[in-house]
Amino acid sequence: MIKVGIVGGTGYTGVELLRILSQHPEVSIQAITSRKEAGMAVAELFPSLRGRKALKFSDPADTKLDKCNLVFFATPNGIAMQQTRVLLDAGVRVIDLAADFRIKDVSEWEKWYGMSHACSDLVVEAVYGLPEINRDKIKGARLVANPGCYPTAVQLGFLPLIETGIVDTDHLIADVKSGVSGAGRNAEIYTLFAEASDNFKAYGVPGHRHLPEIKQGLSNIADRLVGLTFVPHLTPMIRGIHATLYARLTADVDLQVLYENRYANEPFLDVLPSGSHPETRSVRGSNFCRIAVHRPQGGDTVVVLTVTDNLVKGAAGQAVQNMNLMFSLPEALGIDYIAQLP
Amino acid sequence: MIKVGIVGGTGYTGVELLRILSQHPEVSIQAITSRKEAGMAVAELFPSLRGRKALKFSDPADTKLDKCNLVFFATPNGIAMQQTRVLLDAGVRVIDLAADFRIKDVSEWEKWYGMSHACSDLVVEAVYGLPEINRDKIKGARLVANPGCYPTAVQLGFLPLIETGIVDTDHLIADVKSGVSGAGRNAEIYTLFAEASDNFKAYGVPGHRHLPEIKQGLSNIADRLVGLTFVPHLTPMIRGIHATLYARLTADVDLQVLYENRYANEPFLDVLPSGSHPETRSVRGSNFCRIAVHRPQGGDTVVVLTVTDNLVKGAAGQAVQNMNLMFSLPEALGIDYIAQLP
Amino acid sequence: MIKVGIVGGTGYTGVELLRILSQHPEVSIQAITSRKEAGMAVAELFPSLRGRKALKFSDPADTKLDKCNLVFFATPNGIAMQQTRVLLDAGVRVIDLAADFRIKDVSEWEKWYGMSHACSDLVVEAVYGLPEINRDKIKGARLVANPGCYPTAVQLGFLPLIETGIVDTDHLIADVKSGVSGAGRNAEIYTLFAEASDNFKAYGVPGHRHLPEIKQGLSNIADRLVGLTFVPHLTPMIRGIHATLYARLTADVDLQVLYENRYANEPFLDVLPSGSHPETRSVRGSNFCRIAVHRPQGGDTVVVLTVTDNLVKGAAGQAVQNMNLMFSLPEALGIDYIAQLP
Amino acid sequence: MIKVGIVGGTGYTGVELLRILSQHPEVSIQAITSRKEAGMAVAELFPSLRGRKALKFSDPADTKLDKCNLVFFATPNGIAMQQTRVLLDAGVRVIDLAADFRIKDVSEWEKWYGMSHACSDLVVEAVYGLPEINRDKIKGARLVANPGCYPTAVQLGFLPLIETGIVDTDHLIADVKSGVSGAGRNAEIYTLFAEASDNFKAYGVPGHRHLPEIKQGLSNIADRLVGLTFVPHLTPMIRGIHATLYARLTADVDLQVLYENRYANEPFLDVLPSGSHPETRSVRGSNFCRIAVHRPQGGDTVVVLTVTDNLVKGAAGQAVQNMNLMFSLPEALGIDYIAQLP
Repeated sequence: MIKVGIVGGTGYTGVELLRILSQHPEVSIQAITSRKEAGMAVAELFPSLRGRKALKFSDPADTKLDKCNLVFFATPNGIAMQQTRVLLDAGVRVIDLAADFRIKDVSEWEKWYGMSHACSDLVVEAVYGLPEINRDKIKGARLVANPGCYPTAVQLGFLPLIETGIVDTDHLIADVKSGVSGAGRNAEIYTLFAEASDNFKAYGVPGHRHLPEIKQGLSNIADRLVGLTFVPHLTPMIRGIHATLYARLTADVDLQVLYENRYANEPFLDVLPSGSHPETRSVRGSNFCRIAVHRPQGGDTVVVLTVTDNLVKGAAGQAVQNMNLMFSLPEALGIDYIAQLP
Repeated sequence: MIKVGIVGGTGYTGVELLRILSQHPEVSIQAITSRKEAGMAVAELFPSLRGRKALKFSDPADTKLDKCNLVFFATPNGIAMQQTRVLLDAGVRVIDLAADFRIKDVSEWEKWYGMSHACSDLVVEAVYGLPEINRDKIKGARLVANPGCYPTAVQLGFLPLIETGIVDTDHLIADVKSGVSGAGRNAEIYTLFAEASDNFKAYGVPGHRHLPEIKQGLSNIADRLVGLTFVPHLTPMIRGIHATLYARLTADVDLQVLYENRYANEPFLDVLPSGSHPETRSVRGSNFCRIAVHRPQGGDTVVVLTVTDNLVKGAAGQAVQNMNLMFSLPEALGIDYIAQLP
Repeated sequence: MIKVGIVGGTGYTGVELLRILSQHPEVSIQAITSRKEAGMAVAELFPSLRGRKALKFSDPADTKLDKCNLVFFATPNGIAMQQTRVLLDAGVRVIDLAADFRIKDVSEWEKWYGMSHACSDLVVEAVYGLPEINRDKIKGARLVANPGCYPTAVQLGFLPLIETGIVDTDHLIADVKSGVSGAGRNAEIYTLFAEASDNFKAYGVPGHRHLPEIKQGLSNIADRLVGLTFVPHLTPMIRGIHATLYARLTADVDLQVLYENRYANEPFLDVLPSGSHPETRSVRGSNFCRIAVHRPQGGDTVVVLTVTDNLVKGAAGQAVQNMNLMFSLPEALGIDYIAQLP
Repeated sequence: MIKVGIVGGTGYTGVELLRILSQHPEVSIQAITSRKEAGMAVAELFPSLRGRKALKFSDPADTKLDKCNLVFFATPNGIAMQQTRVLLDAGVRVIDLAADFRIKDVSEWEKWYGMSHACSDLVVEAVYGLPEINRDKIKGARLVANPGCYPTAVQLGFLPLIETGIVDTDHLIADVKSGVSGAGRNAEIYTLFAEASDNFKAYGVPGHRHLPEIKQGLSNIADRLVGLTFVPHLTPMIRGIHATLYARLTADVDLQVLYENRYANEPFLDVLPSGSHPETRSVRGSNFCRIAVHRPQGGDTVVVLTVTDNLVKGAAGQAVQNMNLMFSLPEALGIDYIAQLP
């Protein structure tokens, strides 16, 4: 059994992590910390967890996380970077579900996240936790930067096109739609039911924090700096990300075969038959990413459609996939749920 | 491994049964039949199932269901009664998720369901599959009538009050709200998104098919004919039933203790702390029924709140709970999911 | 033209009042005040108003509301009672959309609202603004207490039954479902889209602020103290209230005729044909209250179904209806919109 | 008063047309025909209309539409082309809300709509009813082809860019999201609440009927054949279209000024301040099209965001705008509603 600690965990990423880890056959949750909710039973905050293990939020100061094998940070940005070094020094491995270790260019990170970085050397060490690209590095990592929800969906969609060099990487377009849970469990007016329901809008068009993360990832694949227009949208559904990706083809290849071959051995990547349109609910509550690739009217524009659950493959599920890799467990263990439909 | 067959299965009850049974450690699905979709992969109809066992709908005529240990009927009303006798005669046990065997008074059944019954003798034999009431009979049953979604929520809510004889059973009121999936996967105008979304209404106030089922169940508990006003409502959510139950108290008891004691050993019944309000999402995708009991302003009216997932505890999950009982498996095996929240 | 001022107006009641008053042919909006948003264009906060009159929120301190003929308070509870006397003294009439003047028993009000009342003498003077009951008094009123959304739907539903004395008024039950906008435009977690969507729950069963208001109204009609169990529910829709009301009949009358006759001359009360089920969207954005009355299975329990838009007939629309009465305008002027369906 | 007839009218376009025309000060609705619902009161089908004029659906065979000044066709595709000539010959003007007269290339139309065209000469005469482009021709037209919902949002968004020749018109991209009412009031499984709610998907990527209409419109503006990738998406909201448009800039202009100037005199076009993101609810129930234009990170890709209500500016509202132009009424008469928010 892997002894696991969770820092944070009062948000949506946290409750999803609890749902998955509580049912994982090789995990023992040792502690979950929350300064604000210390002493409260997790089942009081999240009644879906009633009747399972009687876990309480504990005060970080009273919690011996250094006895864990692995600590997940499900905290706001800027927390993990304060506490990771001590844990690593104590021999604890770390997966950060926030953004602290995702961007290698620290000054770029500081610009987008509006704070000074506490440990830029660990940024160098951190492995970006997208198994479909970095599987081997993740296995040996002490510190994994779990990808953002938008970056997961966009990178998995563009990957086969870019690594084979068959599209114009100066003008990539990612038009992405997210469910409202992506905004987190925070009391804000714009995500109220009466504001976000029966409504649709883009946001962050001038610039969004996931832009540098996606550009870094795609540039790594391309081995050159790519150009990307990224437009996120708020969609009136709870969970789900749908990325609609556009690129200009520079070579003529069988796109369906390309995608099927690239992802043939991936446990969570599902390339749909030619002509398909994946829907977000087909991955609701599951760790799958489903993909379809189109070339409308046989023109030179390729359209890739990807769907994920932002809280699973886009957050907690992918974190557990990374854990499985780090601890030499079967990669799909405890995360091979069937999506809940309807 | 229990060899299981499914008849029907193109509706919401069917896909939920597939979701649960595909992940059940002691079940092997032998066949799923559908006259209309014969030859189609189930994963084509329900893409959530892609990547699991390669099951296809088969033609009932070509399918040897008599080699199964158990057959589930996830069909419209009136189908199971045509095929059950042959299966029972072949030694196959049967769980009907439709209404064919729920009502003991056959003429009453015929009035509400508008058809003649094909095998009234089997109605006598059939065990009503509500484990919290009939656990022992279910264990030995050849034929189980799986309860309806409304009847499950209402009976579990009223049960402690009625069996202890502390309420006026002539004037029970059940005000119940259901998600739209309760209406099934049928092309109808009134359940279109553009009709049912951002909208709320009662229906069937003059009479609903679940009324005689609920009255029969409550009358059995009371050992006398009860009086019940039942008002179902269509609610703009996919899954979930919320029953708000009202009764006049005729004795003064500690209601919280009464409910906690009655359900102390039930694996799927969760009595919330005094003063609570259960929400449907706390059981979404799970087999739990959560209950709270109130006595507002200390008056003589008791208010019971119960929530279930209409497709799980109200249909497929309860059917698998019954299967576990019938085959001497741990009652919660394969259905002890944590609800998906948010 | 009536010179109108609005105090508050940054919430949902406020924007709905602006939508209605901006299009009212006999109203000139002089000012809308907000301490917090002073200086901001209302169209910046509510882009639906772009392209109409260029109104800005003004600082209360700089705003001469005493030049108005009428001031609406669309403020949190406890504000109107501070400012009403000065306005009345200046000859300005006042409609309060909050609860400050609704409850005649000031100590009861103080208990439920948790503050001391600033002007109990004005509570005596205030007219409860439910036109179907108080039309004549409203016409001459200086100060109108606009009813709450739940109280409007419940009182209009019970009114014909109680005033004719044909039900047991000791045991009335009001099971009421409200859209999420009823909780206001406040940053709270429980009304987030990701919390309130695809979910249903009761709340406030032990006691809700609208309980004393409803009891007062029904007791006035009955001319004796009534007994009422009131259970409000949060429903995943933006607007709309659906009240399901239950009472025990003590006399045998033609309920359909009773309701049709009682409301025959009411401009905004619509009694549906026998056997109907009103839906909330049939009044979305309109000032109508639609009603159906049932006597299931011919028993002694009457079931009344009423629907209103909580922001229109339950708030801003009814306030303008009261204004029309106070200023001798046609009662339906500027509020006779057709509901938006779908 | 304009004597108006409506053919069809049992769908969402029909009920919206009825909502608008019933409140239009210069319109008298003479008849609404429906073969299927003949004899039924429109208020029975659409209870939102109860309490207004007592209109019934009439049998087309018994209805003297030739006494009208104007007939709207709110019918499925292929009906208007059968009946228009007789009406025009009788001196009646016609607005078709379906697609029969939108595509000038009849063989292209026949390919996409799967039927032979009944009157290709009238296709030549028909004026495409987008006032922002064709205002003068509409004024004198006998026959107006009312644009589709997607084409309206996309053309209005691209118009200023294309007519000034500052973008690469070979590679335009329109990523468009529609509410479910766009699929019409038809009993289909994929638009059921339990299918379309909490879900998001693209559809028609290989080709959609609105593609040739949009390409024709944009090519007319460009005065050359444009290249367009058009991806429509089904969004879990009732009403609303959000178009996210991408084009490569070939010249450096002030985009904000360009859009503001182009639409300065348009009664229903609202260019938002620089940096804005329009949301669909800001036009819900209104005839406005709100637009924002962005140039992310100062690159060479322009992003245009447009929102409309698909049933108003995308259908019934635009039809009435065209009627106002044809009959020399103020263009905004009877359609200058404020959007309903929340």
